[in-house]
Amino acid sequence: MTQAQRPEPCDFLIEAGFVVPVEPLGVVLQDHAVAVTDGEIVAVMPIAEARRRFAATETVQRPDAALIPGLVNAHTHNPMTLLRGIADDLPLMVWLREHIWPAEAAVMGPESVADGVGLAIAEMLRGGTTCCNENYFFPDVQAVVYRRHGFRAVIGLPIIDFPTAWAQTADEYFERAVEVHDQWRGDALIGTAFAPHAPYTVGDANFERIRVLADQLDIPVHLHTHETAQEVADSVQLHGQRPLARLDRLGLVNDRLIAVHMTQLAEAEIELCAERGVSVVHCPESNLKLASGFCPAGALQRAGVNLAIGTDGCASNNDLDMFGETRTAALLAKAVAGDATVLNAAVALRAATLGGARAIGLGARIGSIELGKRADLACVDLSMIETQPLHHVLSQLVYAVGRHQVTDVWIDGRRRMAARELVDIDLAQVAANARQWRARIAVGGG
Amino acid sequence: MTQAQRPEPCDFLIEAGFVVPVEPLGVVLQDHAVAVTDGEIVAVMPIAEARRRFAATETVQRPDAALIPGLVNAHTHNPMTLLRGIADDLPLMVWLREHIWPAEAAVMGPESVADGVGLAIAEMLRGGTTCCNENYFFPDVQAVVYRRHGFRAVIGLPIIDFPTAWAQTADEYFERAVEVHDQWRGDALIGTAFAPHAPYTVGDANFERIRVLADQLDIPVHLHTHETAQEVADSVQLHGQRPLARLDRLGLVNDRLIAVHMTQLAEAEIELCAERGVSVVHCPESNLKLASGFCPAGALQRAGVNLAIGTDGCASNNDLDMFGETRTAALLAKAVAGDATVLNAAVALRAATLGGARAIGLGARIGSIELGKRADLACVDLSMIETQPLHHVLSQLVYAVGRHQVTDVWIDGRRRMAARELVDIDLAQVAANARQWRARIAVGGG
Repeated sequence: MTQAQRPEPCDFLIEAGFVVPVEPLGVVLQDHAVAVTDGEIVAVMPIAEARRRFAATETVQRPDAALIPGLVNAHTHNPMTLLRGIADDLPLMVWLREHIWPAEAAVMGPESVADGVGLAIAEMLRGGTTCCNENYFFPDVQAVVYRRHGFRAVIGLPIIDFPTAWAQTADEYFERAVEVHDQWRGDALIGTAFAPHAPYTVGDANFERIRVLADQLDIPVHLHTHETAQEVADSVQLHGQRPLARLDRLGLVNDRLIAVHMTQLAEAEIELCAERGVSVVHCPESNLKLASGFCPAGALQRAGVNLAIGTDGCASNNDLDMFGETRTAALLAKAVAGDATVLNAAVALRAATLGGARAIGLGARIGSIELGKRADLACVDLSMIETQPLHHVLSQLVYAVGRHQVTDVWIDGRRRMAARELVDIDLAQVAANARQWRARIAVGGG
Repeated sequence: MTQAQRPEPCDFLIEAGFVVPVEPLGVVLQDHAVAVTDGEIVAVMPIAEARRRFAATETVQRPDAALIPGLVNAHTHNPMTLLRGIADDLPLMVWLREHIWPAEAAVMGPESVADGVGLAIAEMLRGGTTCCNENYFFPDVQAVVYRRHGFRAVIGLPIIDFPTAWAQTADEYFERAVEVHDQWRGDALIGTAFAPHAPYTVGDANFERIRVLADQLDIPVHLHTHETAQEVADSVQLHGQRPLARLDRLGLVNDRLIAVHMTQLAEAEIELCAERGVSVVHCPESNLKLASGFCPAGALQRAGVNLAIGTDGCASNNDLDMFGETRTAALLAKAVAGDATVLNAAVALRAATLGGARAIGLGARIGSIELGKRADLACVDLSMIETQPLHHVLSQLVYAVGRHQVTDVWIDGRRRMAARELVDIDLAQVAANARQWRARIAVGGG
């Protein structure tokens, strides 16, 4: 070597005891650093080497932590965080008709949507989630709140065959959808997806409009389907086809489709999803709590289907804890498959990060710690007594970590949580906002 | 009123936003206080009334918290906490033969047992667990460590039909069992139970000795059984009977029996358990992770069987999180039963407290907040963003709380954690002890 290289500038360097890039699968890099400039990951290398190469404006040292890609919650109804625990332990239709719908009728509107999303963002950041796939009414309001807090979100554009506070007619649903899409087109953090509610609440005509528009706008289609045996039976009775077959007839079974729940799947349907590049979002805790059934996550994994993980809304979960949800997914898959090797820790963590990113069309931008990707990152402290001794990092992350072990979060290269403190969110204010909705919701259905 | 009463002295008063006594089922007392003297609960009443009646030496105010009975982990192998995450995602026999047994062979002895239990106690206290039903070798060593930390435990007296580091022959197993029992007889915190490993590792002769001795010593019998379909099939082949029928023939199916796992149960077997007063310990996360099957918790509840919850050991879970385990139990029961109303929040919390206490023969002393019971208590902060808004306390406790929300713990009236600080445990030392076993275990099978 003839001469020392002049150090390159970089915005910040995170030096971690372990870096878990997710891609390649199963890799754990010990004592590595991640360098970020202009929100982009520009280097992943041993700490000593990074110190020689970079002159960082800021260096964050986390020798006891694992740095992981931020978690991607691939199916949420975050405004419903205000309904956390409003009614539990009830059959689906009693729960909906006697509690959720009356509560929503009482309070659903731009104000409650904004406060619910604000509460959800605080909870998600504190649990290492940096991106969510949102599905609720008033997407315009949601987008503003996510953007204000620098949170990455794909906002569902709701389509449903009956009038709601958001829109009255099919035409109005589509007009408002395109309006919201246009408003946020090209935004660094906010994307959109069509969000037809479910096969039993959306008719063929609207699904056909969605297919055409989703292609034109180049956005995903985010849909609850095959959630319960009843839904499948009703579809057969009404349409002479199971929901997936009907969606296929309508041209929607392709790599735009984000199919949520999928607890009722025949072998051929799993193969179809694999062939067509459908992403399946597994929401195990919601499926268990509502007694909907068991998504065959192991069989989907074996077939090569892109698997993502979602918490569903807080009214049916009752949290936005992606660490907990991922653990439940990994545990449940084994008993459902009768095979303890499926959804191992590495595969489960991939589903919670890169799998979610791919599902929502962001697989090239986020979901793993790779050169050129945006810096959506979370630091997880593994030195706590609950993760000692530390035999295997991936095992601890999936099977033992609690979300309170997340210390730091970055989204698009901007610090959102630092040493457990949210950067620009006043927690007391968020909690006060949530509390003032409590009484108003109770009047409705709580 | 003619004259103000002179206040009664009491050792301490806990004033909580909510007191959840567990018995009666489903009750939540708002703004109530619990008074404790000599380790005993002497009053449960509204805060204002308690302040008039008592002159407490100490008052602890927790207006944002729920005070609950300490959680009872009804099946653990706490020395195995040192093996947390040593090997995951493997079929049972590969996991045991290639990882667990070699690791145990490499390090199992009084020293590792003491350090493993020390680590487990710290983890349990931080998660609101105040009592455990222990099942491992070197019960003598365990008992000393639990006692030293003022932790309540029923210590399993292991019986297994082959030699181990603890004992070589059947006679030696029984001699050592009786010795440990005699040593701790009448202790305020430490009890004992026979712990025959499983029907496939204990022969009829030893089960018969256990039956006679358990009656004589008046202690429970803590047994893994009906854990897997293979176990049941093997028993039919070898004994011509399913394990429960064989145990019944041997006189062991009665209210002393703590039957752990029970994922394979016919309707008649559930009824038998109900009739005979057998307690079933449900370890859902272990059963899922090892692909053992699904305990029919909803059917057991409906039949009136006493249901308790256990984490199993950290090698197969991988934590001692009773909040997480209880949530998993409540969620899973609904999907397994196809009925969202089973194991509701109140019933699940009872299983995690009073159900466990009853299983281990302590139902009259702990497990609920009632007059005359020992003060085993935990405070759970519900003001955190993750449990807002607070529509229903029981719902939050079971479906949303993370164990890090536990702030204070008392066992037998002695403070064990205060505002999140363990009273007499040096966490850094506990972690250092755990870490030094890491390398030694890795040599064995990690």
